[in-house]
Amino acid sequence: MSTLPPSQAPVTVVGLGLMGQALAAAFLAKGHPTTVWNRSAGKSDELVANGATLADSVKSAVEASPLVVICVSDYDAVHGLLDPVGSSLASRTLVNLTTASSTQARETAQWAAKLDITYLDGAILALPQAIGSAEATLLYSGPKVAFEQHQATLQVLGEAATIYLDEDHGLSALYDMSVLSIMWGVLNSFLHAAALLETANVKATTFAELATTAINVTAEYASAYAQQIDEGEYPATDATVNVHVGGMTHLLEESQALGVNTELPRFFLELAKRAVADGDAENSYAALIKQFRKPAA
Amino acid sequence: MSTLPPSQAPVTVVGLGLMGQALAAAFLAKGHPTTVWNRSAGKSDELVANGATLADSVKSAVEASPLVVICVSDYDAVHGLLDPVGSSLASRTLVNLTTASSTQARETAQWAAKLDITYLDGAILALPQAIGSAEATLLYSGPKVAFEQHQATLQVLGEAATIYLDEDHGLSALYDMSVLSIMWGVLNSFLHAAALLETANVKATTFAELATTAINVTAEYASAYAQQIDEGEYPATDATVNVHVGGMTHLLEESQALGVNTELPRFFLELAKRAVADGDAENSYAALIKQFRKPAA
Repeated sequence: MSTLPPSQAPVTVVGLGLMGQALAAAFLAKGHPTTVWNRSAGKSDELVANGATLADSVKSAVEASPLVVICVSDYDAVHGLLDPVGSSLASRTLVNLTTASSTQARETAQWAAKLDITYLDGAILALPQAIGSAEATLLYSGPKVAFEQHQATLQVLGEAATIYLDEDHGLSALYDMSVLSIMWGVLNSFLHAAALLETANVKATTFAELATTAINVTAEYASAYAQQIDEGEYPATDATVNVHVGGMTHLLEESQALGVNTELPRFFLELAKRAVADGDAENSYAALIKQFRKPAA
Repeated sequence: MSTLPPSQAPVTVVGLGLMGQALAAAFLAKGHPTTVWNRSAGKSDELVANGATLADSVKSAVEASPLVVICVSDYDAVHGLLDPVGSSLASRTLVNLTTASSTQARETAQWAAKLDITYLDGAILALPQAIGSAEATLLYSGPKVAFEQHQATLQVLGEAATIYLDEDHGLSALYDMSVLSIMWGVLNSFLHAAALLETANVKATTFAELATTAINVTAEYASAYAQQIDEGEYPATDATVNVHVGGMTHLLEESQALGVNTELPRFFLELAKRAVADGDAENSYAALIKQFRKPAA
């Protein structure tokens, strides 16, 4: 005697770029009846072969499921596709995983509210190939009740980390930007370091192990500084901003002497010197948060 | 019947700032006869109470041990102290742990060679309070035979990681600068992110956990990119530089809209756009190494 698996909730995926295809494939793999649509043809062949239903219009796509997930290039594309079918989305839940700013996310939430669409904004902190695996983190913001209603379906996309943040629709976008800022900051300083070491014929792969240690150790500092930032007190239990200025001066001189790019060390140094000018010479590096809060130099 | 511990090698520590005191204390703790000297008085009281010998001059300090460790504010201070006692240092081993550029380290190695001083340049990747613990990493460059001769003594300072790099005296300084570059890069982008999230009343400590994950994940990317850098080929198995440019544009707009500092995202974006202009639009982020190799924008 066999039993059928519990029936899974139907879902529609609009937009079949690399990420949209990965999202739809993850839903299909877990047995969700999946309807797909893409502006240009040909992106859905493999998904259809695996059981997806290709809708013949955006309208029929969004009408096929109570949960509609969209992931396209930007919010202009989101509105270009969905504005004409707003009434079809009414009383459905729209999950927008398109990368955007928090302002755009909040504006889109207002648009959705007027049309009686339940709206969740989300951010994907993963590459397409990680979707559906334990390595994908996805963040959601908007009405918690809507997240909880569709949580089981959404968890298909990020098995380990499907995180609800806040009622404020802008937060997932803001976290996304914050995480990207960290990523670029780490990568740029790694590349700068690799360029420095190349001048002495040290391979990047040779440096990578120590670089990884340095990155991970710095992550611990960041956590310690987070507490200082929240408390608004910056006691220098390690190095003072003045000591950092000394080291940054060395880094700038080293970069100049070896003929590599000086922009990054120059930015480090200018920022730290501004902190010194603002009275933070004897504080910890966390005091530089004040410089980042300022709209301009 | 009791046995005496094996006799430990005598060592001299010149310079008793916070780091110098930590170095001397670590040697003392492991039973090394330790002679100390500092330009200004009063820094040696606790060390002397714990068994250190306070020398009455730099000359008598360096003559007290075959191994002399110096850690002062900069290389001007190194030469101010040691140039007058160069002949006393002849045939001894000098380990210079003062922070410097690789150029300064190599110049000091030439100075030492003329005086028949065996010279090791070193870098301390640790706070004073970590010296002697498993968390301190120390790097050395210069003659390997000298490092090996004193390795047992030097390992007292960094129990887990006392690393010999290369005969090139400049390498420990270059690694030091490279690690610091990474540290400032990580911290600045974390602070930028914290400033962004503050605008939505998200505490830095709330963000810290996800930030740590992001930092550690990016460390894995850096390792993967290291291989591309060494091979000189940058296939975009994840995101292309063009995709990064799109995200950076969002980060810049978000920072502008929320009134936080725009310098960091502007630098990210300009650098990536230059990579696009140089033909790397469809390559991986690792291709930006070419921008960091260039002396100027």
